[in-house]
Amino acid sequence: MEQQRIRRVLERMAERGLRQMIVSDPASIRYLTGVDVQPMERLLALYLRQGGCRLFLNRMFTVPPTGLEEVWVSDSDDPVTPLAETVKAEEVLGVDRQWPARYLLPLIERVEGLRCVVASDCVDQVRAVKDQAEQEKMIAASALNDRCVEELKNWFHAGMTERACVEYISGLYRKYGATGVSFAPIVAFGANAADPHHVSDDTVVQEGDCVLVDTGCVLDGYCSDMTRTYYYRTMSERNRALHDLVREANELAEAAVRPGIPLRELDRIAREHIAAAGYGENFTHRLGHFIGTECHESGDVSATTDLTAEPGMCFSIEPGVYLPGETGVRVEDLVLVTAEGCRVLNHLEKRAEAVGGPD
Amino acid sequence: MEQQRIRRVLERMAERGLRQMIVSDPASIRYLTGVDVQPMERLLALYLRQGGCRLFLNRMFTVPPTGLEEVWVSDSDDPVTPLAETVKAEEVLGVDRQWPARYLLPLIERVEGLRCVVASDCVDQVRAVKDQAEQEKMIAASALNDRCVEELKNWFHAGMTERACVEYISGLYRKYGATGVSFAPIVAFGANAADPHHVSDDTVVQEGDCVLVDTGCVLDGYCSDMTRTYYYRTMSERNRALHDLVREANELAEAAVRPGIPLRELDRIAREHIAAAGYGENFTHRLGHFIGTECHESGDVSATTDLTAEPGMCFSIEPGVYLPGETGVRVEDLVLVTAEGCRVLNHLEKRAEAVGGPD
Repeated sequence: MEQQRIRRVLERMAERGLRQMIVSDPASIRYLTGVDVQPMERLLALYLRQGGCRLFLNRMFTVPPTGLEEVWVSDSDDPVTPLAETVKAEEVLGVDRQWPARYLLPLIERVEGLRCVVASDCVDQVRAVKDQAEQEKMIAASALNDRCVEELKNWFHAGMTERACVEYISGLYRKYGATGVSFAPIVAFGANAADPHHVSDDTVVQEGDCVLVDTGCVLDGYCSDMTRTYYYRTMSERNRALHDLVREANELAEAAVRPGIPLRELDRIAREHIAAAGYGENFTHRLGHFIGTECHESGDVSATTDLTAEPGMCFSIEPGVYLPGETGVRVEDLVLVTAEGCRVLNHLEKRAEAVGGPD
Repeated sequence: MEQQRIRRVLERMAERGLRQMIVSDPASIRYLTGVDVQPMERLLALYLRQGGCRLFLNRMFTVPPTGLEEVWVSDSDDPVTPLAETVKAEEVLGVDRQWPARYLLPLIERVEGLRCVVASDCVDQVRAVKDQAEQEKMIAASALNDRCVEELKNWFHAGMTERACVEYISGLYRKYGATGVSFAPIVAFGANAADPHHVSDDTVVQEGDCVLVDTGCVLDGYCSDMTRTYYYRTMSERNRALHDLVREANELAEAAVRPGIPLRELDRIAREHIAAAGYGENFTHRLGHFIGTECHESGDVSATTDLTAEPGMCFSIEPGVYLPGETGVRVEDLVLVTAEGCRVLNHLEKRAEAVGGPD
């Protein structure tokens, strides 16, 4: 399978006229080689070239057999030397967008005349389209996420804090076999929800508060990510109206997903719906992001993306409205593009709901 | 205070003949400006130049007043343009070692003739020397860590799993007001301890197992980090001898710390002690790392470092011996270099100890 993935990347490179590339993103290397290493400050790199792929490793790493030509260095070696001996000075070299200056600058210095360009897209566009096995894992991870958020919602009670909710759902993920969280779960009550990246704290829930839950777990190496916004015990008419607006934006965008649609069109559909109600300024972020083995993969669903939906792509649809000092609403699902439209991976109710019964 | 820190960095730059630099490491920017932002894929950069510092920010960031000249961009702007207009093409530009290709390559492309060099050291060497207020925070964070590891040790009991220990100490950190962990705590039983980076799992403790605890909390923005190795209920003579060997290596290195000593000398002292007993091959990592607002700051205590101890430096001393399939021992303290020698920040007993009484 990895061989096939490398072949797809080499095809993308050829389309761009690139004959050599250094992949350094650990998640991409795992995807292409099966080597699962967090190199920290050490060098981990995959050199891609038709008929001449090489994997650069440090002796501190533990890796399974890769079937690739391996170049091992120790901490006492200069890691750039074998790279400099491998790349062809006369050909443009693609590199990952995240490749750090500590390796890039010495390589440019060492290989006279070398020209480098950012070429992560060649890998990212392959990773963006999930194969059958990956799709099944994305579906399973989101099914587990649905289950845990549902259980969390049923556990809501007087006196609970945001942090207690985060701990509760983290415990559910472990109990049901998730291997981790996609990101630190966000639970935000009332005005705290007006910050899309609120860090959950010891705030205690109050009647009438919104309870925004943005969370995801990792199952079998693949991430889920969903947001639901609830209302604690009572819901004002204003909260209900805001919620309906955001939910409709989410549903309108999801209904529009089909192969061939520019992703910026999805962002526009959601944004115009919210703007028409006068809240355009309060939808302060992009509509969505790609997701897979990482929660935020390259590629976004925004006003500026040039991507077009293809079957197998997986991304979030997450409009939100934020009223500083008052409240926030976000409704997020993951979707998988299919031949006809899309499969929504989350099945939890998204209509406005007052939850948490009498004490 | 931040102004003074920037001045110290400008001095380091001048010593290297650098008149301009782009700092991009978020922890360094926080240290130099007070701006605490995790920019993710967005650009956050501090341009340093005598009399012409500028902070480049994205409108998605929330920052306090900085007193610096601020340049704000939106997601729809090209973030490299204002940088390209700021840097002087005719002067070498220092950049952070981690600065990614996505910004570095377009900047080089845009500014004809610009030569870039990695210059993180100019900032890192300033950060490495803690001022009085920082030293107090390092001391307080380690005191809290001592307390929590002591409580964890007293809680050890039959049937406990590694994961349960991690959860227990995480709870203690929260209870006593830590704002987070320096890293995911490592608790490893028996043969699991032979992997220095073991991920704690559901292994249940067995009589005679070593119980390696490597953990740290964050208090007031500063990190602690300590390792103790215990023995569950009984301790073999072999385990005791290995433990003494590692503890002695730790103590010999700590006793040698004083201003002016090359840090590689500390590594040598610990390594030779372990090698003399025949376990040189089993001490597989450097002796220590710098620490402060981040658990692993730039600078290490290893055979290859060129650093020399200065008052105010803070780093770990953590020799270890790892016997695959069998056991592992590591003993780690943080030390703060003083005018005469060093202050060891951890005060927990490090002699070999059998813990966990009868059921």
